[in-house]
Amino acid sequence: MPTYAAPVADTLFVLNEVIGLPGQAGLPGASDLTADVVEAILTEAGRIASDVLQPLNQIGDREGCTRHADGSVTTPAGFREAYALFREGGWGGLSASEAFGGQGLPHVIGTAVNEFFSAANMAFAMYPGLTRGAVAAIESHGSDEQKALYLPKMIEGSWTGTMNLTEPHCGTDLGLLRTMAVPAEDGSFRVTGQKIFISAGEHDLAENIVHLVLARIEGAPAGVKGISLFVVPKFLPDADGNPGARNALSCGAIEEKMGIHGNATCVMNYDGAVGWLVGEANSGLKAMFTMMNEARLGVGLQGLAVSEIAYQNAVTYARDRLQGRSLTGRKAPDKPADPLIVHPDIRRMLMTMRAFNEGGRALILWTAFQGDLAHRAADMGVRQDGDDWMGLMTPIIKGVLTDKGFENAVMAQQVYGGHGYIREWGMEQFVRDARIAQIYEGANGIQALDLVGRKLTLNNGRAVQDFLRLAAGFCEEHANDERLAPLLKSLKRGMGDLRQALGWLMENAKVDPDNAGAASNDMMHLFGLVALGYVWAVSAQAAGNALEEGRGDADFMRAKLATARFFADRIMPETGAHLARIASGAGSLMALDAEAF
Amino acid sequence: MPTYAAPVADTLFVLNEVIGLPGQAGLPGASDLTADVVEAILTEAGRIASDVLQPLNQIGDREGCTRHADGSVTTPAGFREAYALFREGGWGGLSASEAFGGQGLPHVIGTAVNEFFSAANMAFAMYPGLTRGAVAAIESHGSDEQKALYLPKMIEGSWTGTMNLTEPHCGTDLGLLRTMAVPAEDGSFRVTGQKIFISAGEHDLAENIVHLVLARIEGAPAGVKGISLFVVPKFLPDADGNPGARNALSCGAIEEKMGIHGNATCVMNYDGAVGWLVGEANSGLKAMFTMMNEARLGVGLQGLAVSEIAYQNAVTYARDRLQGRSLTGRKAPDKPADPLIVHPDIRRMLMTMRAFNEGGRALILWTAFQGDLAHRAADMGVRQDGDDWMGLMTPIIKGVLTDKGFENAVMAQQVYGGHGYIREWGMEQFVRDARIAQIYEGANGIQALDLVGRKLTLNNGRAVQDFLRLAAGFCEEHANDERLAPLLKSLKRGMGDLRQALGWLMENAKVDPDNAGAASNDMMHLFGLVALGYVWAVSAQAAGNALEEGRGDADFMRAKLATARFFADRIMPETGAHLARIASGAGSLMALDAEAF
Repeated sequence: MPTYAAPVADTLFVLNEVIGLPGQAGLPGASDLTADVVEAILTEAGRIASDVLQPLNQIGDREGCTRHADGSVTTPAGFREAYALFREGGWGGLSASEAFGGQGLPHVIGTAVNEFFSAANMAFAMYPGLTRGAVAAIESHGSDEQKALYLPKMIEGSWTGTMNLTEPHCGTDLGLLRTMAVPAEDGSFRVTGQKIFISAGEHDLAENIVHLVLARIEGAPAGVKGISLFVVPKFLPDADGNPGARNALSCGAIEEKMGIHGNATCVMNYDGAVGWLVGEANSGLKAMFTMMNEARLGVGLQGLAVSEIAYQNAVTYARDRLQGRSLTGRKAPDKPADPLIVHPDIRRMLMTMRAFNEGGRALILWTAFQGDLAHRAADMGVRQDGDDWMGLMTPIIKGVLTDKGFENAVMAQQVYGGHGYIREWGMEQFVRDARIAQIYEGANGIQALDLVGRKLTLNNGRAVQDFLRLAAGFCEEHANDERLAPLLKSLKRGMGDLRQALGWLMENAKVDPDNAGAASNDMMHLFGLVALGYVWAVSAQAAGNALEEGRGDADFMRAKLATARFFADRIMPETGAHLARIASGAGSLMALDAEAF
Repeated sequence: MPTYAAPVADTLFVLNEVIGLPGQAGLPGASDLTADVVEAILTEAGRIASDVLQPLNQIGDREGCTRHADGSVTTPAGFREAYALFREGGWGGLSASEAFGGQGLPHVIGTAVNEFFSAANMAFAMYPGLTRGAVAAIESHGSDEQKALYLPKMIEGSWTGTMNLTEPHCGTDLGLLRTMAVPAEDGSFRVTGQKIFISAGEHDLAENIVHLVLARIEGAPAGVKGISLFVVPKFLPDADGNPGARNALSCGAIEEKMGIHGNATCVMNYDGAVGWLVGEANSGLKAMFTMMNEARLGVGLQGLAVSEIAYQNAVTYARDRLQGRSLTGRKAPDKPADPLIVHPDIRRMLMTMRAFNEGGRALILWTAFQGDLAHRAADMGVRQDGDDWMGLMTPIIKGVLTDKGFENAVMAQQVYGGHGYIREWGMEQFVRDARIAQIYEGANGIQALDLVGRKLTLNNGRAVQDFLRLAAGFCEEHANDERLAPLLKSLKRGMGDLRQALGWLMENAKVDPDNAGAASNDMMHLFGLVALGYVWAVSAQAAGNALEEGRGDADFMRAKLATARFFADRIMPETGAHLARIASGAGSLMALDAEAF
């Protein structure tokens, strides 16, 4: 059975030493946030993750969710009790607006906590995860009435939320969607259509479920310009705002999936369900993107989270399992064989996972912090910088950390040998669960296109230039720091590859737009490596400082430096292959006719 | 529901144009093998794969195998009938010795057929697959009596075989195994112990199951030098060689696995079971390696096979699914959207799978042919070359083609978007099934160590030097062929990286043996890329020849050239990253103490 210990120390290192969060002047919600308070929150969240959520993870996988004849759905044993505890602890409102009952802490804190919960039980953490996305959409685009009606209940967790985009014939291409909304006389709409792959679409955890549904108002223009967003609650709120009459919507089936069985992925049927427009007619896509961006960072976080728990268990197994002898002489002469961890190829796998997890954590928390600055900083320039960083890094975090998160889950499984393939050990569940993160909230190919087709060129490439300037500035500032030298050397090589790739793209995407599509996946991963290389360099510098100044645990800081070096030596060299592929263009990729496949 | 069409045309291309198999002078079994006969065999095998085995694949996954209270095991619905058909068709004896009732065709033909069967239904194909390994071990190491008793039944398929190596506390490190064999007065042994992960350990397909079991004879030396191989049949053959008394062995449980549910993976309990020594006492490991090498090529073939069927279905979906518009203008203006296949990133995935499948097929068939030469060629020098190639390529094919096969199954699933995660579409089964091939018959880390620690240095590196000479000779011979120029350029760069890596290893492995372990995985993949690059160059040259000489289907040959170019442009650049990692040594990988993880 897998176990989990939340990486509180590493999270605190990022928050305190890298970001310098506590006492951030000018950031509402952070200025009186002491390191002690942050540590107390993280420690308690870690306890819940280990003691409450993680023990339900395998149960959730085995039992799955059950749809009954009346369309109601029950979650796996223990989920209701765990959710009640989650709700009572106020965890759903940690970073939510105080105006609607939230605790108003910076999102970076909520993000850290969500990593722990997702690692311990990804399927469970999706219920509040979807709710957060729905909250963000209503808060940004809903009317004051809608906010007042829905947000307090959702933030306190007594109601949950969903996102309804996909239909059987359209996922990525939402312009094709057919769900219709017909105006009623009282200003509401009647929504009719079928949505599929609706996570947390129906369950027994909450008093009400607030569906946000993309639909087309009768007579609206074709394509994405005719899409509107509706709030369609399972129970229509009565005059007091309590769940009233049952709405005409139901779960038609639960999908049989590869993983995340503890989350009810529903086919949702809307049969003239009462809904209300959120925001303006025909601008539903914009509202949905608010939700999607929130969700995409959350999905990137899932990639990291599953990778972390898979890594932890691989370490445990590698320490315990005796098999073979070290190439450099026996290390456990009193035992029949040495533990796996003495073998370099096992180390390669452990260090690869570790380097991605720590680097990924720093990148995600840094990005969440930039999101806080974007929303809350007093200085408008700081807000813009934060927003630029968030926009640029969202597709990278979603795409790269879920691809790597999955690869790491596979690697952790590999450490277990044959036992990794057996269900009771729990490692294969991580692989099956992690896999969805590469697919949903925009498959990773879409993330890559968002990066290449939009984020790189937005505002004349301001966000990219700012990033490169920042990283180059760091390299320059620390050019004489010998401890950082190998890291900066590899970072600079990676940045050189990235610059060349960007230059190639600028030249060649106009010649043939397929060159951009052909480069997109490699560009996303190349950029991801450089972004991770940068946060690793910053983390190493922070660890070195702490070590010199005698702050924190010296062993921790030394391990941080060693892991940074591994990243530079063993991971960063991949940038060259990405550049070579990008620069080979679309030619050999598009050479075959579709019929020739 | 997935479908499958055996790649007969591509297989014939490799056999006829690349290997030049039909009419091979001096190769018994091949000299009177005309192209027509080969095509007829492959076509019929393809028909069985598509019409009989593939339709049972999802059923096998859903139903799995069932162990009854008496320890008997039933396979999924339809498996018995399919196996009867397989047996009656003589498919189990295709490449087996004529002396024992086989058809004596070259192994390269059997290998081609096994790809089709494994693609259509990997779990099913494992039953005869294990039998082939057991046949090889008995044929090489058994007594004449044992051969006469077991081989005809196994080759005709009425008895199947298994390999019993793993025990709960030892997999890779067989020196730790505890199963005991006590000599009886009649020259037989009584075998006692527990074996786990025994594929096809118990089932209802055959009249008898011939277990080959590694055990330690009472008083044998500790470690691998005290291991012997025993044949322990489920039913003891009576005087006429028919199944007689039930032996004291049983299936204690069926493992719950991530995939290959149609194959019964058993915990096998031996309780004083009657067994007979195969070969000499205490040299069981050698006998087992005969079986393992056979099995390892078979597992590499599974990686290719699942990758092929996953690819085929991804192509179908990419052609059918309408989503978005081409970046270069709409391609299906009469439809609501263009098919996925117009998008460069979808092409990237399809071409990546295709290039590995065709290259992998050429490499495996070439290697199987070298195995035929090693066993059957008249010329002793040719035999030695064949044996050298086989030994060198076995860990590479097992490790690289299963790693890539799994990645490709994941990629094919990605093409399906959300539908790829849903069981009914069948794509996620390919991922779950393909995963085991990276683990069993020696986890891929062990393959990498076999390559680096043994195969590279065997006979002073003769096999490696021969390979490099062969590839360099090809490059030189075709230096003026403009059509091949980009391919040879990328191959030569890859060979340069490989040479550097080999040189680095030779220098540094003696300084610190961990440098070899730290390099092993990258060396295996680097070598694999160069080997694939070489067979791709040879294939392209053959396709170009055929095109010029008007032989075969011109569209096929042009597609072959285009896919070769893709491999050179987009896959070969990865060699540089492998070299960089190898040359970074064991330092940053071993820097952390085991306690610091």
